[in-house]
Amino acid sequence: MVYSEMLSKKLKEADAKEGSRISLRNGDEEYIGRLMPHHDFSAPDILILKMKSGYNLGIRVLEDSVIEVIERPSPVVVEREEPEPREGLPNFTLVSTGGTIASFVDYRTGAVRPAMSASELVDAVPELREIANIKARVLFSIFSENMEVSHWQELAEVVAEEINAGADAIIIPHGTDTMSYTAAALSFMLGDVPKPVVLVGAQRSSDRPSSDASSNMMACARFCAEGKAAGVFVVMHEGLGDDSFSVHTGSRVRKMHTSRRDSFRSVNVPPAATVSKEGVVKYCGEPRSPSEGEATARTAMDPRTVLLQYYPGMDPDVFGPVIMGSRGAVIAGTGLGHVGQPMCRVLKEACEKGIVVVMTSQCLGGTTNMNVYDTGRDLISAGVISVGDMLPEVAYVKLMWVLANSESAHEAKRMMAEPMANETGNRRCVL
Amino acid sequence: MVYSEMLSKKLKEADAKEGSRISLRNGDEEYIGRLMPHHDFSAPDILILKMKSGYNLGIRVLEDSVIEVIERPSPVVVEREEPEPREGLPNFTLVSTGGTIASFVDYRTGAVRPAMSASELVDAVPELREIANIKARVLFSIFSENMEVSHWQELAEVVAEEINAGADAIIIPHGTDTMSYTAAALSFMLGDVPKPVVLVGAQRSSDRPSSDASSNMMACARFCAEGKAAGVFVVMHEGLGDDSFSVHTGSRVRKMHTSRRDSFRSVNVPPAATVSKEGVVKYCGEPRSPSEGEATARTAMDPRTVLLQYYPGMDPDVFGPVIMGSRGAVIAGTGLGHVGQPMCRVLKEACEKGIVVVMTSQCLGGTTNMNVYDTGRDLISAGVISVGDMLPEVAYVKLMWVLANSESAHEAKRMMAEPMANETGNRRCVL
Repeated sequence: MVYSEMLSKKLKEADAKEGSRISLRNGDEEYIGRLMPHHDFSAPDILILKMKSGYNLGIRVLEDSVIEVIERPSPVVVEREEPEPREGLPNFTLVSTGGTIASFVDYRTGAVRPAMSASELVDAVPELREIANIKARVLFSIFSENMEVSHWQELAEVVAEEINAGADAIIIPHGTDTMSYTAAALSFMLGDVPKPVVLVGAQRSSDRPSSDASSNMMACARFCAEGKAAGVFVVMHEGLGDDSFSVHTGSRVRKMHTSRRDSFRSVNVPPAATVSKEGVVKYCGEPRSPSEGEATARTAMDPRTVLLQYYPGMDPDVFGPVIMGSRGAVIAGTGLGHVGQPMCRVLKEACEKGIVVVMTSQCLGGTTNMNVYDTGRDLISAGVISVGDMLPEVAYVKLMWVLANSESAHEAKRMMAEPMANETGNRRCVL
Repeated sequence: MVYSEMLSKKLKEADAKEGSRISLRNGDEEYIGRLMPHHDFSAPDILILKMKSGYNLGIRVLEDSVIEVIERPSPVVVEREEPEPREGLPNFTLVSTGGTIASFVDYRTGAVRPAMSASELVDAVPELREIANIKARVLFSIFSENMEVSHWQELAEVVAEEINAGADAIIIPHGTDTMSYTAAALSFMLGDVPKPVVLVGAQRSSDRPSSDASSNMMACARFCAEGKAAGVFVVMHEGLGDDSFSVHTGSRVRKMHTSRRDSFRSVNVPPAATVSKEGVVKYCGEPRSPSEGEATARTAMDPRTVLLQYYPGMDPDVFGPVIMGSRGAVIAGTGLGHVGQPMCRVLKEACEKGIVVVMTSQCLGGTTNMNVYDTGRDLISAGVISVGDMLPEVAYVKLMWVLANSESAHEAKRMMAEPMANETGNRRCVL
């Protein structure tokens, strides 16, 4: 769909191009913002402006509306040569996947777009070059809700390849929507990876005054530069201020708020470390040290895996076939790990058929314990695996991986029950 | 399944009956606890003992094990007459549904069992009678994971009946597993109910030293006795101590931990009130006052409603039919309310077919905002309803209710988008 004839004419007359800062007056009201591309699904008389707040506003243009250009779009950034590597600095590879954090330099249109060139990505946070020699690769340019299992696989392979080519750390800019799923996937696929592999996101794009993009990126780089911890991590704001950052274990983290800068939280454990604004890193206990070993990516995943939350009224006639058609099902049960009688029967039948059924809790906090009440004991006796304080989403990712990396349901169950990437079990420390 | 011949003989010789405190010696190891009923799914040589910790332990009895009775079971509590109502006290009806809170007087067997007589229920917290004249009704005796939609309907009808018969408040002891789902259901079914209707649970049964059963019940009664707020609420511990309790709005609360006493949390709003140990109630803003109006229960619910969490790898071939077979689907999307492209197509198709698709966020905290990124705008334009800061579980319960109480998909969508029981929207206050 395109603009209406009336609107096209107005834009042409005002010489208003995408990326221009314009004023749109509808009678007494005036809207000022950058002109965004027209969307297929917007009505033909709607203009989309990116406001100063960073949010987009769709405004209906009327016959007597007045459009004026306040500022022309800035010229396209010219790609330039990578600088020479500096001696004495570690070598990091930045593998970008997209998301808000990789969208922050499109000053031309003001659009939040996930496409960004490798040099743009580094140039947006020039201080990175003080910390390390940065090689940047744009692997994907997608919003993270579009990450699929195949993206995880490709990403894990590229990470292993870059480590084996000499990278001292891998930094992965990623959309926040599914960042914790990807972190969990890399945790299992990369196992005892010999270097830090750190995902980093942003809740606000850098065209907004409150952007956390560059501060998160810097904290991530400082954590990597310390070179004291190998493994898969997620770095994001610890609180609302720019003064402290949390380093979460990749298999223990969850996005707990849609928009706050401190939305990422370690669940059931303290964060693995914190990083101050000045780059001081405090660890929770003793981290696993980086080594010169080889990185291996075991990327096989079984897609015949489902994640389901139990709720009162869940219809066994609807969800029975979903579970029976899978090779493995993770249930986010109620409380300590329960489901009502009708779904209980479905889960027992699934276990009998050799389907691996894994119980987690929709409470998220705390641990499943299916030995306290009859319902739980009944499920345990049927063969349902209780995975303690593992997050439902992490259990789902692990189950996909375990089903593709085991020979039998019996082996898969054993693997689900034992910690493989710090995804379950207590960790106590004072940070 | 019953006990093995060997074990039956040992129990008979020791005269060990259910509820007896016994000692079981396996060689050097001795286990002391109350003998619990044998479960169908336990092996015939397993004895279940309730330990001092309150947890049950299954122990294999061997040929040379020694069983001795330490203490006989206490006699069955004799039911007694209800006391005369006292003038000047308000009249509360206690409608018990079961759960840990209604399981705390089975001292005979030591079992956590959800069955409890009406007078036992009140006698367990005798101080209740100082606050109000209590009429107790045992409506169900089930663990709350077995609550179904039909239970919500029956409960709502009984609540309305009791209010219309003169009760000044209704207290509903309930299992914690699905207490927030029931609270949401009552919120929609009872609408502007003229009296306080308060659900109360316990995370630890009263045979455990750390039980929160009677303190929660007392806080609940004190809140009701103030008589200043009408509506559906949930009362539980505010923190780990016994000194303060939260009164949550029934449509804004979620169980966020499997075992902590402060596991119930208001999400995206402060609690409606707090109650101190001494009974001082502080309100968040101005509560809706109780009145002498009639209570009405609108209990129709459409069971053809599903709740699904989006995750990477979610198979549209598996979940497409689930959604297309429903009349309404609540999606717990990622971040601000997104799903990946393949599921996006399914949701659009569902909207075209007249299925009501409602978007919430799996982050739980924060609000959906589908106008920020393309994925969201695309879904909005297809007709997906974004419900802001409404919890996914509450949106599911509301959608069942809305579908049964509207004439068209159009009306249902309109009802989903507008607040009906404080289930969405800001509330700011200093408590």
